[in-house]
Amino acid sequence: MFPERGRSLDAVLSEILRIREKDPSTEDGTILGTMITTPHPISLKVVSMYLSSTLSDPIIFEEAARLEKEVIAALGDLLNGSNIMGTFTSGGSEANVLGAYMLRQVSGKKYIVVPETAHFSFLKAEKLGIVRLKLARVDDRLKVDPESVERLIDDSVGGIVGIAVNTDAGSVDPIYELNRIALEHDLHVYVDAALGGLVLPFMKDLGLCVPSFDFELERVLGMCVDPHKFGLTPPPAGTFLFRENIADIIHFKATYYFEERQYSIVSTRPAWPPVVFWGVINTLGREGFRNLVRRCLGVRDYAVKRLEEEGLEVPMIPETIIVNVQVKNPRKVATFLRKRFKISVGVSPRLSSLRIVIMPHVTEESIERLIDALKFSIKELNDK
Amino acid sequence: MFPERGRSLDAVLSEILRIREKDPSTEDGTILGTMITTPHPISLKVVSMYLSSTLSDPIIFEEAARLEKEVIAALGDLLNGSNIMGTFTSGGSEANVLGAYMLRQVSGKKYIVVPETAHFSFLKAEKLGIVRLKLARVDDRLKVDPESVERLIDDSVGGIVGIAVNTDAGSVDPIYELNRIALEHDLHVYVDAALGGLVLPFMKDLGLCVPSFDFELERVLGMCVDPHKFGLTPPPAGTFLFRENIADIIHFKATYYFEERQYSIVSTRPAWPPVVFWGVINTLGREGFRNLVRRCLGVRDYAVKRLEEEGLEVPMIPETIIVNVQVKNPRKVATFLRKRFKISVGVSPRLSSLRIVIMPHVTEESIERLIDALKFSIKELNDK
Repeated sequence: MFPERGRSLDAVLSEILRIREKDPSTEDGTILGTMITTPHPISLKVVSMYLSSTLSDPIIFEEAARLEKEVIAALGDLLNGSNIMGTFTSGGSEANVLGAYMLRQVSGKKYIVVPETAHFSFLKAEKLGIVRLKLARVDDRLKVDPESVERLIDDSVGGIVGIAVNTDAGSVDPIYELNRIALEHDLHVYVDAALGGLVLPFMKDLGLCVPSFDFELERVLGMCVDPHKFGLTPPPAGTFLFRENIADIIHFKATYYFEERQYSIVSTRPAWPPVVFWGVINTLGREGFRNLVRRCLGVRDYAVKRLEEEGLEVPMIPETIIVNVQVKNPRKVATFLRKRFKISVGVSPRLSSLRIVIMPHVTEESIERLIDALKFSIKELNDK
Repeated sequence: MFPERGRSLDAVLSEILRIREKDPSTEDGTILGTMITTPHPISLKVVSMYLSSTLSDPIIFEEAARLEKEVIAALGDLLNGSNIMGTFTSGGSEANVLGAYMLRQVSGKKYIVVPETAHFSFLKAEKLGIVRLKLARVDDRLKVDPESVERLIDDSVGGIVGIAVNTDAGSVDPIYELNRIALEHDLHVYVDAALGGLVLPFMKDLGLCVPSFDFELERVLGMCVDPHKFGLTPPPAGTFLFRENIADIIHFKATYYFEERQYSIVSTRPAWPPVVFWGVINTLGREGFRNLVRRCLGVRDYAVKRLEEEGLEVPMIPETIIVNVQVKNPRKVATFLRKRFKISVGVSPRLSSLRIVIMPHVTEESIERLIDALKFSIKELNDK
C-alpha cells in the first residue's frame, strides 16, 4: 500500500537501519560468492557530491562527462587499444547486450557464436530478439574449444564472443584463437571481460602468464569491463568499449539532448560511477591494482591449500580468482551454509561445486570460517 | 592513460572537488530543463548503508529484496492495479525497452504503435531489433490522435504505447481511448508514465481533472514510473510494472542465482534505489506528495503568468509541470543561456520552444532569474 500519511524522518530511518542489519555486508567476511566487494574509501565521498548529477546531459554536467571520457581512455590504454571509445553502462549485462548488438550491426548477420559458459545476459539478448546464439562447447577447464567454435561458423554467423574470466571457473577463453578464427572468416570478436578486465592486465604486470585477450588482437572489436567488480566502485558501474570506427554503426539517436548520440540502452546515467572509478585509478595506479591482485591471488592459494588439507576437493587449479569446491549437492550445501552460518557462496551446477570468488574483501580468516562451516554442513547433510 | 602510480586520497579528492564545482547542481536553481531534482534528505543516508549491496542476489540481500517488492506493490496500489509485479530498472529507457518487448512477447507480433512524441528509448528498442514502430500522429497539444492510432493497426501490430506526461509538452495521451482501441482489436497497452506516474495520481487527489491512464484500464498491461524523476530518489531508479499473469512470458532466465528469474536487462542492480524510495514514500505519504505537486503547480502557474507579463510567448497552457516558451531559434538561445548565465533549459525542436520542467527544486526565484536571462539573451541574439 502507498501510505496516506508520512512518518518522521527519524522513525523511517531507524526502521531502515533495523532492516539493513538483517542483511550481510561484504565487511562481515560472509559474502564469498559474488563479484561485488567493499568499495574504495573515496566512493561515498564522490557519490555524495554527484548524487543527482547525470551523464545523460553531457552539456550540463560537462566536467563529469569529461571524466567519463578520461576513464574510458584509461581502460582502452590498459587493454592495449588505441582509438577506443565507450560508455559507462549499468554493468556487464547491458554491455553484453550491446556487444551482441554490435556484432550484428557490423556484420548484418543474426547469429553469434558464444561459449556455453557465457553469462546469461547473452540469453537475454537472444530472448529480446537482438541476436540468436550458437553455443560452442567448452573443455574440462570450461574454456571454449576453438574447434567447436569453427564448426559452428556458417553464412548466418556475424561474430564470436569470448570470455576473459568466466563465472563458473574463473578461467579465460583462448581469445587469441577466436581472433585467428575471426580473421580467417572475416568476423569480429567481442570479449566479456566484466571481471577479468581489471584482473588480467595486473596479473600480466606481475609476470604471470596471461595469453592475449584484449584490443592487442586486431579482430577484437569490443569489450566490457565492470568497475563495480574488481574496480572497487559501487554498482552500477560497467563499461562497454569499442573501436571508434564503428561508432556510426552502433550509436543510438538521442533527441532532447544537445549531444545527440548515446551508446547505451540506459539513458539517464548517474554521473558518479565514472568519477568514483577515476578516483580509484588515480589513487591506486597500476601499482595499487597489482598489489590488490597479488593479495587476492595469495588468499586464493591459501584457500586451495587449506581446502585440500581439510580433505575437500578443489576440482581444478584456479586460473584467476575463483575457487571451486566439489560437493554432492551444491545447492543444498549452499542453502545450509546460508541458513545455519549466514555464509553466502556461489554455486556452479555445471561443476557440481560451490564457487568462491576471492574478491578484495575476502581474507584468510573468512576462508577459515568457511572451511569450518563447510565441514560441519557436509557432515550434517550426509548424516540426514 | 592508466596511471602507473597512485596519488594520495586527499590529493585526488581535492582535485575531484575542484572539478565538481565547475558543474552546476540542482540546488543552484540553474538546472531548469531536466527531470532530475534534489534527492530527498534520506537518500544519502540510505545509499551509504547499501553502497555495495545488490538486488541481483535476492537470497543474500533478502530484506532489501523484500523492500523492493513492497515498493513495487505500493506503486501498483497507487496506479489502481491489483496483482501488479515489477522490478526496479535503471530508469525509463530500460523500462520502455522492456515494455516494447512485453507487447511483442504477449502478442507474438513485431510492430507496435507509438505516438510520434514517444521517448527516444522506443527508437532504441527498434534499433536493437526488439520491435518495429509505427508512429501515430499527435494533435496540436502533442497528445496522440486515437484515429491515427486506429488507422495504423493491422495484423502485424502487437500493441499500443501511450505516454502519461510526454517530454515535449508535459501533456497526457488519451490512454482511455487507447484502451478502447486495444479492447476492440484484442491488443494491449503499455504506458510510459516515467514522469507522470508520480505526478498524476496526486493531481487527482488534489481534485484536478486527470483522465484514466493507469491499471484501472483493463487493457493496460504494463507501465513504467521513475522514482528518480518525481520520486526524489537519485538515479538510477526506474520501475517496470506489469500484471502478474504475464510473468511467465516475459521473464529472463538467470542462472547462477537461486531465484532464477529476472525481469530486467540489467543483472547486478544496486539495492539502495528501492530502499531510498521506500524511505521517501514512508516519510511523505500521499499527503506529502500532494503538497509537493501542489507547490510545483503553483510555481508553474507563476512561471506562465510572469513569462506572459514579460511578453514571452507560452504556446500552450501546461497540463502538468512542463512549461514551454516559444523562441525563434531554441537551440541557439539555450546555448547562449548556458554559456552566458550558466542556466540550463531543455529544447523542443517540435514546438520551437525552450522547455522548463518545474521539478521540486525549481522556485519562483529561479524563474525570475531565468526570465531576466532570457530577455537579455533574446535581445542580444536578435541584435546580431
